[in-house]
Amino acid sequence: MKEKHAIGIDVGGTNTKFGIVNKKGVILVQDRIKTNEHENVEEFIDDLAEKLNPMIEQYGGPEAFVGIGMGAPNANYYQGTIEYAANLKWKGIIPMAELLEQKFKIPAKLTNDANAAAVGEMQYGAAKGMKNFITITLGTGVGSGIIIDGKIVLGHNGFAGELGHVIVRNGGREHKGTGLKGSLEAYASATGVRDTAIELLQETQHSPSLLENYPINELTSETVFKCAEQGDSLANEVFEFTGQILGEALATFVHFSAPEAIVLFGGLTKAGDLIMKPTRQAMEDNLLQVFKNKVKILYSDLQEADAAILGASALVW
Amino acid sequence: MKEKHAIGIDVGGTNTKFGIVNKKGVILVQDRIKTNEHENVEEFIDDLAEKLNPMIEQYGGPEAFVGIGMGAPNANYYQGTIEYAANLKWKGIIPMAELLEQKFKIPAKLTNDANAAAVGEMQYGAAKGMKNFITITLGTGVGSGIIIDGKIVLGHNGFAGELGHVIVRNGGREHKGTGLKGSLEAYASATGVRDTAIELLQETQHSPSLLENYPINELTSETVFKCAEQGDSLANEVFEFTGQILGEALATFVHFSAPEAIVLFGGLTKAGDLIMKPTRQAMEDNLLQVFKNKVKILYSDLQEADAAILGASALVW
Repeated sequence: MKEKHAIGIDVGGTNTKFGIVNKKGVILVQDRIKTNEHENVEEFIDDLAEKLNPMIEQYGGPEAFVGIGMGAPNANYYQGTIEYAANLKWKGIIPMAELLEQKFKIPAKLTNDANAAAVGEMQYGAAKGMKNFITITLGTGVGSGIIIDGKIVLGHNGFAGELGHVIVRNGGREHKGTGLKGSLEAYASATGVRDTAIELLQETQHSPSLLENYPINELTSETVFKCAEQGDSLANEVFEFTGQILGEALATFVHFSAPEAIVLFGGLTKAGDLIMKPTRQAMEDNLLQVFKNKVKILYSDLQEADAAILGASALVW
Repeated sequence: MKEKHAIGIDVGGTNTKFGIVNKKGVILVQDRIKTNEHENVEEFIDDLAEKLNPMIEQYGGPEAFVGIGMGAPNANYYQGTIEYAANLKWKGIIPMAELLEQKFKIPAKLTNDANAAAVGEMQYGAAKGMKNFITITLGTGVGSGIIIDGKIVLGHNGFAGELGHVIVRNGGREHKGTGLKGSLEAYASATGVRDTAIELLQETQHSPSLLENYPINELTSETVFKCAEQGDSLANEVFEFTGQILGEALATFVHFSAPEAIVLFGGLTKAGDLIMKPTRQAMEDNLLQVFKNKVKILYSDLQEADAAILGASALVW
């Protein structure tokens, strides 16, 4: 019998990446589409099918696949649904697994996008061989996947591991998608970095900054990073502040599940020590004695898209 | 062969409670000693033996027991040690399981006191039949036990579930035992309630309060409760504030492990709706849509001492 393959799909706030994966965890072919160009989910699936169907045919047609695994924000593993995802345009409850099965005639399973990445890290990445760790994605939003005793934590309703939405500054900055005030994602995401920069620039007594050369609409976390690298003090302050908040949150997570490591990935990690130094410091400052200097902070050594595609595909084996 | 029994010991910041438990979970006999009257752990164990040895003899001597299970703050299940416990006088690393085995000639196992209570709740109490829940003790300190998929979460080093030490007000009130600033235990414990009352009374423009009739040294969480019951607005404000902080923290825990319920016990729960109304409100206000109105807050229906003794004893079966 011919070797079967799996399809892994990673739905992010900006891009949806997908690929065909063999049992050894090699991505044989991959591509991407924009997630939020599609006002409704049917158009999204049509667009996905246009690119994915030729790949499926290339590798033997639907019957040559064991399944489709998808990682998506607010995915419910038990129900196969995406529910009230703050960073997606599709509102309410989306029966995604059902829609995928109808379109592709292949069984489909869903899990949280960050959970999928955590599984990818455990099987092929920085957390290989670890039984207790947490992955945190610092991208457009903040996602997380929690592994305890070698298993993804799903919780009673399947939505465990929404660490981007814990409150870190009570009554603080409002998150547009969720309405929550002072949540981690409002600060420690690409959007949060931008918002912090804008806030600091709006202070009447701020220090002169290269960031003032950019129109406010063109400020991004990348711009802040570039200016910080050039020694701009306000831009550095943005990363100090972001790292402080992220580190405090990591300490909270350590007190919860006592992980061996926290694996970070996503765009913000590209800021390197600019964000990691204050993050590590704030984490250590807020830990009980029994945890101090014991928890590793690692960067994912998988390509971000690869971790998520591999992890999603691992759902169906 | 005669039925064997277990010994359950619950070490709290104030009292140590212990009992002999049969396999059905009936506490056949129990007693208590003061925990912190003993400057060193050997005196503590001598005192414990004085009361426990006659019970052991009454039920057939050491060979009639399968083991001693102890729940204690900062207990390390893997090592059988108590390490750097903030609320105990014994500092450093205490090889408690070894000391117990030497004294009683019965095998001993340790776990976190709150973990032991969680196991008690799962087997005999409010969480009977649940696979995903969190217990929070609101006593002298704030303890917690986390159950995921029917198992206690121990984590990589055995110290998972230290939820009393998560930061809820960054840079906030200093916790004397840990040195952490703004941790949950600094607010949502009996000590925290007292400290909040004192802080409010020290504000220059506070409302007139029955609490002013007490010398500051006689203020306790019970006094605050009595005054609040009589409609004292400052005392009520203390519980509003405490509940607000506790509720925000519960929301964080829900985002982590998506429990079916949170089971509360300990002295502060006696304040009933005075603390629970603001707690529930603050929790719901800070939850993602997918969790709103879905997580139960329950009171333990076991006697507090019973849950901990039963849970500790369950370690050795």
